[in-house]
Amino acid sequence: MGKVVAEISISLDGYVAGPSPSLEEPLGRGGEQLHEWAMRTKTFRELHGMEGGDDDPDGELLAESVQAQGAVVMGRRMFSGGEGPWEDDPNATGWWGDEPPFHKPVFVVTHQEREPLVLGETTFTFVTDGVSAAVEQARAVAAADREVLVAGGAETIDEALAAGLVDELQLHVAPVLLGGGTRLFEGLGAERPRLELVSVRESPHASHLRYRIA
Amino acid sequence: MGKVVAEISISLDGYVAGPSPSLEEPLGRGGEQLHEWAMRTKTFRELHGMEGGDDDPDGELLAESVQAQGAVVMGRRMFSGGEGPWEDDPNATGWWGDEPPFHKPVFVVTHQEREPLVLGETTFTFVTDGVSAAVEQARAVAAADREVLVAGGAETIDEALAAGLVDELQLHVAPVLLGGGTRLFEGLGAERPRLELVSVRESPHASHLRYRIA
Repeated sequence: MGKVVAEISISLDGYVAGPSPSLEEPLGRGGEQLHEWAMRTKTFRELHGMEGGDDDPDGELLAESVQAQGAVVMGRRMFSGGEGPWEDDPNATGWWGDEPPFHKPVFVVTHQEREPLVLGETTFTFVTDGVSAAVEQARAVAAADREVLVAGGAETIDEALAAGLVDELQLHVAPVLLGGGTRLFEGLGAERPRLELVSVRESPHASHLRYRIA
Repeated sequence: MGKVVAEISISLDGYVAGPSPSLEEPLGRGGEQLHEWAMRTKTFRELHGMEGGDDDPDGELLAESVQAQGAVVMGRRMFSGGEGPWEDDPNATGWWGDEPPFHKPVFVVTHQEREPLVLGETTFTFVTDGVSAAVEQARAVAAADREVLVAGGAETIDEALAAGLVDELQLHVAPVLLGGGTRLFEGLGAERPRLELVSVRESPHASHLRYRIA
Protein backbone atom coordinates (compact mmCIF):
# COMPACT_ATOMS: atom_id res chain seq x y z
CA MET A 1 0.00 0.00 0.00
CA GLY A 2 1.23 3.50 -0.80
CA LYS A 3 2.40 5.80 1.94
CA VAL A 4 0.44 8.67 3.44
CA VAL A 5 2.60 11.80 3.17
CA ALA A 6 1.76 15.10 4.84
CA GLU A 7 3.47 17.91 2.94
CA ILE A 8 3.35 21.64 3.57
CA SER A 9 5.38 24.83 3.20
CA ILE A 10 6.31 26.53 6.45
CA SER A 11 8.18 29.62 7.54
CA LEU A 12 11.33 29.37 9.63
CA ASP A 13 9.25 30.62 12.57
CA GLY A 14 6.72 27.83 12.10
CA TYR A 15 3.78 29.38 10.28
CA VAL A 16 2.01 27.74 7.35
CA ALA A 17 -0.06 30.88 6.65
CA GLY A 18 0.47 34.51 7.56
CA PRO A 19 -1.74 36.70 9.77
CA SER A 20 -5.07 38.23 8.72
CA PRO A 21 -6.10 36.08 5.73
CA SER A 22 -8.50 37.83 3.38
CA LEU A 23 -9.94 37.33 -0.09
CA GLU A 24 -7.03 39.40 -1.45
CA GLU A 25 -4.45 37.51 0.60
CA PRO A 26 -5.95 34.07 1.26
CA LEU A 27 -2.62 32.86 2.66
CA GLY A 28 -2.43 35.78 5.09
CA ARG A 29 0.00 38.67 5.12
CA GLY A 30 3.25 37.50 3.59
CA GLY A 31 1.96 33.95 3.22
CA GLU A 32 2.67 33.77 -0.52
CA GLN A 33 6.38 33.83 0.27
CA LEU A 34 6.05 30.33 1.70
CA HIS A 35 5.23 28.99 -1.74
CA GLU A 36 7.71 30.92 -3.86
CA TRP A 37 10.06 27.91 -3.94
CA ALA A 38 7.31 26.06 -5.86
CA MET A 39 5.55 28.85 -7.74
CA ARG A 40 8.70 29.89 -9.59
CA THR A 41 9.22 26.43 -11.07
CA LYS A 42 8.34 25.13 -14.52
CA THR A 43 6.65 22.15 -12.82
CA PHE A 44 4.25 24.35 -10.87
CA ARG A 45 3.47 26.55 -13.85
CA GLU A 46 2.73 23.54 -16.07
CA LEU A 47 0.34 22.13 -13.47
CA HIS A 48 -1.45 25.48 -13.51
CA GLY A 49 -1.56 25.65 -17.31
CA MET A 50 1.14 28.32 -17.57
CA GLU A 51 4.36 28.46 -19.55
CA GLY A 52 7.86 29.37 -18.40
CA GLY A 53 9.35 28.96 -14.96
CA ASP A 54 12.61 27.57 -13.64
CA ASP A 55 13.75 24.04 -14.38
CA ASP A 56 15.73 23.33 -11.22
CA PRO A 57 15.97 21.07 -8.14
CA ASP A 58 12.89 22.64 -6.51
CA GLY A 59 10.89 21.85 -9.62
CA GLU A 60 12.28 18.30 -9.73
CA LEU A 61 11.27 17.73 -6.12
CA LEU A 62 7.79 19.06 -6.79
CA ALA A 63 7.46 16.85 -9.88
CA GLU A 64 8.53 13.79 -7.89
CA SER A 65 5.87 14.49 -5.27
CA VAL A 66 3.15 15.05 -7.85
CA GLN A 67 4.04 11.84 -9.69
CA ALA A 68 4.18 9.81 -6.50
CA GLN A 69 0.77 10.94 -5.31
CA GLY A 70 -2.40 9.20 -6.42
CA ALA A 71 -4.90 11.15 -4.34
CA VAL A 72 -5.08 14.22 -2.13
CA VAL A 73 -6.71 15.00 1.23
CA MET A 74 -7.27 18.60 2.32
CA GLY A 75 -9.32 20.61 4.79
CA ARG A 76 -12.21 22.81 3.77
CA ARG A 77 -10.19 25.95 4.49
CA MET A 78 -7.53 24.94 2.03
CA PHE A 79 -10.26 24.12 -0.47
CA SER A 80 -12.00 27.46 -0.02
CA GLY A 81 -8.81 29.50 0.06
CA GLY A 82 -7.99 30.29 3.65
CA GLU A 83 -9.87 31.26 6.76
CA GLY A 84 -12.61 33.86 6.41
CA PRO A 85 -16.33 34.51 6.11
CA TRP A 86 -16.40 32.98 2.62
CA GLU A 87 -15.16 29.59 3.77
CA ASP A 88 -18.64 28.26 4.50
CA ASP A 89 -20.04 29.05 1.05
CA PRO A 90 -21.88 25.80 0.16
CA ASN A 91 -21.32 26.45 -3.55
CA ALA A 92 -17.60 27.23 -3.33
CA THR A 93 -15.67 25.77 -6.24
CA GLY A 94 -12.22 26.07 -4.70
CA TRP A 95 -9.90 28.91 -5.54
CA TRP A 96 -8.06 27.32 -8.45
CA GLY A 97 -10.51 28.22 -11.22
CA ASP A 98 -11.89 25.78 -13.81
CA GLU A 99 -8.69 23.73 -14.07
CA PRO A 100 -7.39 22.96 -10.58
CA PRO A 101 -3.75 21.83 -10.59
CA PHE A 102 -4.35 18.43 -8.97
CA HIS A 103 -5.50 16.30 -11.93
CA LYS A 104 -6.39 13.51 -9.49
CA PRO A 105 -9.04 12.73 -6.87
CA VAL A 106 -9.17 15.20 -3.98
CA PHE A 107 -10.99 14.49 -0.71
CA VAL A 108 -12.10 17.57 1.23
CA VAL A 109 -12.72 17.17 4.97
CA THR A 110 -15.75 19.32 5.77
CA HIS A 111 -18.90 19.49 7.89
CA GLN A 112 -21.19 20.22 4.94
CA GLU A 113 -22.60 17.33 2.93
CA ARG A 114 -22.26 17.98 -0.75
CA GLU A 115 -22.22 16.21 -4.13
CA PRO A 116 -18.80 15.66 -5.72
CA LEU A 117 -17.52 18.56 -7.80
CA VAL A 118 -15.74 17.87 -11.08
CA LEU A 119 -13.48 20.61 -12.45
CA GLY A 120 -11.29 19.67 -15.41
CA GLU A 121 -9.34 16.53 -14.45
CA THR A 122 -9.88 17.03 -10.72
CA THR A 123 -12.77 15.52 -8.76
CA PHE A 124 -13.42 16.96 -5.31
CA THR A 125 -15.24 14.57 -2.98
CA PHE A 126 -16.58 16.04 0.25
CA VAL A 127 -16.09 13.85 3.32
CA THR A 128 -18.09 14.65 6.44
CA ASP A 129 -16.89 11.94 8.79
CA GLY A 130 -13.39 13.18 9.50
CA VAL A 131 -9.82 12.99 8.27
CA SER A 132 -9.47 9.23 8.90
CA ALA A 133 -12.38 8.52 6.58
CA ALA A 134 -10.95 10.91 3.99
CA VAL A 135 -7.54 9.21 4.08
CA GLU A 136 -9.22 5.81 3.81
CA GLN A 137 -11.20 6.89 0.74
CA ALA A 138 -8.10 8.45 -0.80
CA ARG A 139 -6.17 5.21 -0.25
CA ALA A 140 -8.94 3.25 -1.92
CA VAL A 141 -8.79 5.29 -5.15
CA ALA A 142 -5.00 5.76 -5.29
CA ALA A 143 -3.28 2.90 -7.06
CA ALA A 144 -1.63 0.46 -4.68
CA ASP A 145 1.83 1.92 -5.13
CA ARG A 146 0.91 5.60 -5.11
CA GLU A 147 0.99 7.91 -2.12
CA VAL A 148 -1.83 9.79 -0.49
CA LEU A 149 -0.95 13.46 0.02
CA VAL A 150 -2.33 15.20 3.09
CA ALA A 151 -1.90 18.72 1.75
CA GLY A 152 -3.12 20.90 4.60
CA GLY A 153 -3.90 23.13 6.15
CA ALA A 154 -2.39 22.98 9.59
CA GLU A 155 -5.53 21.68 11.29
CA THR A 156 -5.95 18.79 8.86
CA ILE A 157 -2.28 17.78 9.02
CA ASP A 158 -2.30 18.01 12.83
CA GLU A 159 -5.41 15.82 12.98
CA ALA A 160 -3.87 13.29 10.63
CA LEU A 161 -0.61 13.23 12.63
CA ALA A 162 -2.44 12.91 15.97
CA ALA A 163 -4.56 10.07 14.57
CA GLY A 164 -1.45 8.17 13.48
CA LEU A 165 -2.45 8.28 9.80
CA VAL A 166 0.77 9.79 8.44
CA ASP A 167 3.80 7.77 7.34
CA GLU A 168 6.03 10.67 6.30
CA LEU A 169 6.10 14.41 6.89
CA GLN A 170 7.68 16.67 4.26
CA LEU A 171 8.26 20.27 5.30
CA HIS A 172 9.38 22.92 2.84
CA VAL A 173 11.03 25.45 5.15
CA ALA A 174 11.05 28.86 3.48
CA PRO A 175 13.79 31.31 4.56
CA VAL A 176 11.25 33.80 5.86
CA LEU A 177 9.92 34.96 9.23
CA LEU A 178 6.17 35.74 9.13
CA GLY A 179 5.83 36.85 12.75
CA GLY A 180 2.28 35.55 13.06
CA GLY A 181 -0.42 33.46 11.41
CA THR A 182 -1.35 29.80 11.54
CA ARG A 183 1.12 27.42 13.16
CA LEU A 184 1.65 23.79 12.33
CA PHE A 185 1.78 21.30 15.27
CA GLU A 186 -0.38 23.43 17.61
CA GLY A 187 -3.27 20.97 17.32
CA LEU A 188 -1.30 17.88 18.29
CA GLY A 189 -1.87 18.03 22.03
CA ALA A 190 -0.13 15.15 23.76
CA GLU A 191 -0.18 13.02 20.58
CA ARG A 192 3.23 14.08 19.37
CA PRO A 193 4.73 11.59 16.93
CA ARG A 194 8.37 10.59 17.02
CA LEU A 195 10.30 11.61 13.93
CA GLU A 196 13.27 10.20 12.03
CA LEU A 197 14.99 12.22 9.34
CA VAL A 198 14.68 10.65 5.89
CA SER A 199 16.32 13.31 3.73
CA VAL A 200 17.24 16.95 3.43
CA ARG A 201 17.24 18.70 0.08
CA GLU A 202 18.51 22.22 -0.14
CA SER A 203 17.85 25.20 -2.33
CA PRO A 204 18.08 28.95 -1.77
CA HIS A 205 14.26 28.99 -1.87
CA ALA A 206 13.48 26.33 0.73
CA SER A 207 15.07 23.59 2.82
CA HIS A 208 13.10 20.44 2.14
CA LEU A 209 13.11 18.29 5.29
CA ARG A 210 11.51 14.86 5.10
CA TYR A 211 10.79 12.78 8.20
CA ARG A 212 9.49 9.28 8.79
CA ILE A 213 6.91 8.98 11.54
CA ALA A 214 8.35 6.38 13.91
CA MET B 1 36.08 42.24 11.70
CA GLY B 2 34.69 38.82 12.59
CA LYS B 3 31.03 38.02 12.12
CA VAL B 4 28.41 37.90 14.83
CA VAL B 5 26.72 34.49 14.67
CA ALA B 6 23.61 33.54 16.62
CA GLU B 7 23.50 29.78 17.04
CA ILE B 8 20.98 27.64 18.86
CA SER B 9 19.38 24.20 18.85
CA ILE B 10 15.66 24.16 18.17
CA SER B 11 12.88 21.60 17.89
CA LEU B 12 10.98 21.09 14.65
CA ASP B 13 8.04 22.85 16.30
CA GLY B 14 10.17 25.87 17.14
CA TYR B 15 11.12 25.52 20.80
CA VAL B 16 14.63 26.13 22.14
CA ALA B 17 13.68 24.80 25.59
CA GLY B 18 10.90 22.51 26.76
CA PRO B 19 8.07 23.32 29.16
CA SER B 20 8.39 23.57 32.96
CA PRO B 21 12.15 24.08 33.43
CA SER B 22 13.37 23.01 36.86
CA LEU B 23 16.68 22.42 38.63
CA GLU B 24 16.43 18.78 37.56
CA GLU B 25 15.50 19.68 33.97
CA PRO B 26 16.96 23.14 33.36
CA LEU B 27 16.15 22.85 29.65
CA GLY B 28 12.53 21.99 30.37
CA ARG B 29 10.70 18.74 29.79
CA GLY B 30 12.33 16.99 26.85
CA GLY B 31 14.70 19.92 26.25
CA GLU B 32 17.85 17.79 26.43
CA GLN B 33 16.81 16.11 23.19
CA LEU B 34 17.55 19.38 21.38
CA HIS B 35 21.24 19.01 22.21
CA GLU B 36 21.72 15.30 21.61
CA TRP B 37 23.22 16.00 18.17
CA ALA B 38 26.08 17.79 19.98
CA MET B 39 26.28 15.92 23.28
CA ARG B 40 26.97 12.59 21.61
CA THR B 41 30.05 13.90 19.80
CA LYS B 42 33.71 13.55 20.70
CA THR B 43 34.08 17.32 20.22
CA PHE B 44 31.47 18.11 22.86
CA ARG B 45 32.81 15.57 25.31
CA GLU B 46 36.37 16.88 24.95
CA LEU B 47 35.17 20.44 25.63
CA HIS B 48 33.55 19.13 28.79
CA GLY B 49 36.65 17.18 29.87
CA MET B 50 35.19 13.78 29.00
CA GLU B 51 36.48 10.95 26.85
CA GLY B 52 34.70 9.01 24.11
CA GLY B 53 31.91 10.19 21.87
CA ASP B 54 31.26 10.00 18.15
CA ASP B 55 33.70 11.40 15.60
CA ASP B 56 31.26 12.37 12.86
CA PRO B 57 29.90 15.30 10.80
CA ASP B 58 27.98 16.73 13.77
CA GLY B 59 31.19 16.82 15.78
CA GLU B 60 33.08 18.40 12.87
CA LEU B 61 30.46 21.13 12.58
CA LEU B 62 30.62 21.79 16.31
CA ALA B 63 34.43 21.91 16.21
CA GLU B 64 34.34 24.39 13.30
CA SER B 65 32.00 26.68 15.27
CA VAL B 66 34.09 26.48 18.42
CA GLN B 67 37.29 27.25 16.51
CA ALA B 68 35.73 30.14 14.62
CA GLN B 69 34.42 31.82 17.76
CA GLY B 70 36.58 34.18 19.79
CA ALA B 71 34.01 35.26 22.37
CA VAL B 72 30.51 34.38 23.52
CA VAL B 73 27.43 36.43 24.48
CA MET B 74 24.63 34.84 26.48
CA GLY B 75 21.65 35.83 28.62
CA ARG B 76 21.56 35.39 32.37
CA ARG B 77 19.06 32.54 32.07
CA MET B 78 21.42 30.55 29.91
CA PHE B 79 24.20 31.34 32.38
CA SER B 80 22.17 30.25 35.39
CA GLY B 81 20.73 27.17 33.71
CA GLY B 82 17.24 27.98 32.56
CA GLU B 83 14.27 29.87 33.89
CA GLY B 84 13.37 29.43 37.57
CA PRO B 85 13.57 30.87 41.04
CA TRP B 86 17.32 30.23 41.19
CA GLU B 87 18.13 32.37 38.19
CA ASP B 88 18.53 35.55 40.24
CA ASP B 89 21.10 34.06 42.61
CA PRO B 90 23.77 36.81 42.74
CA ASN B 91 26.47 34.24 43.48
CA ALA B 92 25.53 31.82 40.71
CA THR B 93 28.59 30.29 39.04
CA GLY B 94 26.84 28.98 35.97
CA TRP B 95 25.79 25.39 35.66
CA TRP B 96 28.91 24.01 34.02
CA GLY B 97 30.94 23.35 37.18
CA ASP B 98 34.56 24.46 37.69
CA GLU B 99 35.61 23.97 34.08
CA PRO B 100 33.01 25.53 31.79
CA PRO B 101 33.30 24.31 28.21
CA PHE B 102 33.86 27.73 26.62
CA HIS B 103 37.59 28.32 27.20
CA LYS B 104 37.16 31.90 25.99
CA PRO B 105 35.64 35.18 27.20
CA VAL B 106 31.89 35.02 27.85
CA PHE B 107 29.71 38.12 28.26
CA VAL B 108 26.52 37.60 30.25
CA VAL B 109 23.67 40.08 29.69
CA THR B 110 22.09 40.67 33.09
CA HIS B 111 20.51 43.30 35.31
CA GLN B 112 22.80 42.58 38.27
CA GLU B 113 26.16 44.31 38.48
CA ARG B 114 28.84 41.85 39.39
CA GLU B 115 32.61 41.34 39.26
CA PRO B 116 33.95 39.06 36.52
CA LEU B 117 33.98 35.38 37.37
CA VAL B 118 36.95 33.24 36.33
CA LEU B 119 36.38 29.49 36.12
CA GLY B 120 39.18 27.47 34.54
CA GLU B 121 39.90 28.99 31.14
CA THR B 122 36.56 30.80 30.94
CA THR B 123 36.02 34.36 32.14
CA PHE B 124 32.41 35.47 32.59
CA THR B 125 31.95 39.24 32.37
CA PHE B 126 28.55 40.58 33.45
CA VAL B 127 27.16 43.32 31.24
CA THR B 128 24.29 45.43 32.57
CA ASP B 129 23.70 47.78 29.65
CA GLY B 130 22.12 45.39 27.19
CA VAL B 131 22.93 42.98 24.41
CA SER B 132 24.42 45.64 22.09
CA ALA B 133 27.01 46.54 24.71
CA ALA B 134 27.73 42.86 25.32
CA VAL B 135 28.27 42.20 21.61
CA GLU B 136 30.52 45.27 21.39
CA GLN B 137 32.67 44.08 24.29
CA ALA B 138 32.81 40.58 22.84
CA ARG B 139 33.95 41.98 19.50
CA ALA B 140 36.67 43.97 21.21
CA VAL B 141 38.22 40.90 22.85
CA ALA B 142 37.73 38.46 19.98
CA ALA B 143 40.64 38.55 17.54
CA ALA B 144 39.83 40.50 14.38
CA ASP B 145 39.09 37.39 12.32
CA ARG B 146 37.14 35.43 14.91
CA GLU B 147 33.41 35.34 15.31
CA VAL B 148 31.27 36.41 18.21
CA LEU B 149 28.77 33.72 19.18
CA VAL B 150 25.38 34.82 20.49
CA ALA B 151 24.55 31.55 22.20
CA GLY B 152 21.10 32.15 23.65
CA GLY B 153 18.65 31.87 25.06
CA ALA B 154 15.72 32.86 22.89
CA GLU B 155 15.30 36.28 24.46
CA THR B 156 18.93 37.25 23.95
CA ILE B 157 19.01 36.02 20.34
CA ASP B 158 15.72 37.78 19.58
CA GLU B 159 17.06 41.03 21.05
CA ALA B 160 20.26 40.72 19.05
CA LEU B 161 18.32 39.99 15.84
CA ALA B 162 15.89 42.86 16.41
CA ALA B 163 18.79 45.24 17.09
CA GLY B 164 20.46 44.28 13.80
CA LEU B 165 23.54 42.90 15.56
CA VAL B 166 23.57 39.46 13.95
CA ASP B 167 25.32 38.62 10.65
CA GLU B 168 24.41 34.94 10.50
CA LEU B 169 21.88 32.67 12.17
CA GLN B 170 22.71 28.98 12.61
CA LEU B 171 19.84 26.75 13.68
CA HIS B 172 20.34 23.13 14.64
CA VAL B 173 16.89 21.68 13.98
CA ALA B 174 16.43 18.53 16.06
CA PRO B 175 13.95 15.93 14.75
CA VAL B 176 11.73 16.28 17.78
CA LEU B 177 8.40 17.89 18.71
CA LEU B 178 8.41 19.36 22.24
CA GLY B 179 4.81 20.60 22.22
CA GLY B 180 5.58 23.55 24.48
CA GLY B 181 8.33 25.62 26.06
CA THR B 182 10.29 28.67 24.97
CA ARG B 183 10.01 29.75 21.37
CA LEU B 184 12.63 31.49 19.29
CA PHE B 185 11.53 34.55 17.25
CA GLU B 186 8.60 35.44 19.57
CA GLY B 187 10.43 38.56 20.82
CA LEU B 188 11.14 40.06 17.41
CA GLY B 189 7.97 42.11 17.08
CA ALA B 190 7.96 43.97 13.78
CA GLU B 191 11.76 43.85 13.51
CA ARG B 192 11.90 40.67 11.49
CA PRO B 193 15.15 40.32 9.56
CA ARG B 194 15.29 39.07 5.99
CA LEU B 195 17.15 35.79 5.63
CA GLU B 196 19.23 34.17 2.89
CA LEU B 197 20.23 30.54 3.10
CA VAL B 198 23.99 30.04 3.38
CA SER B 199 24.20 26.29 3.86
CA VAL B 200 22.38 23.17 4.97
CA ARG B 201 24.22 20.31 6.63
CA GLU B 202 22.38 17.14 7.37
CA SER B 203 22.64 14.40 9.92
CA PRO B 204 20.12 12.03 11.47
CA HIS B 205 20.53 14.02 14.70
CA ALA B 206 19.88 17.55 13.41
CA SER B 207 19.47 19.57 10.24
CA HIS B 208 21.94 22.44 10.45
CA LEU B 209 20.46 25.45 8.64
CA ARG B 210 22.65 28.53 8.31
CA TYR B 211 21.24 31.88 7.15
CA ARG B 212 22.78 35.23 6.35
CA ILE B 213 20.87 38.22 7.70
CA ALA B 214 20.17 40.38 4.63
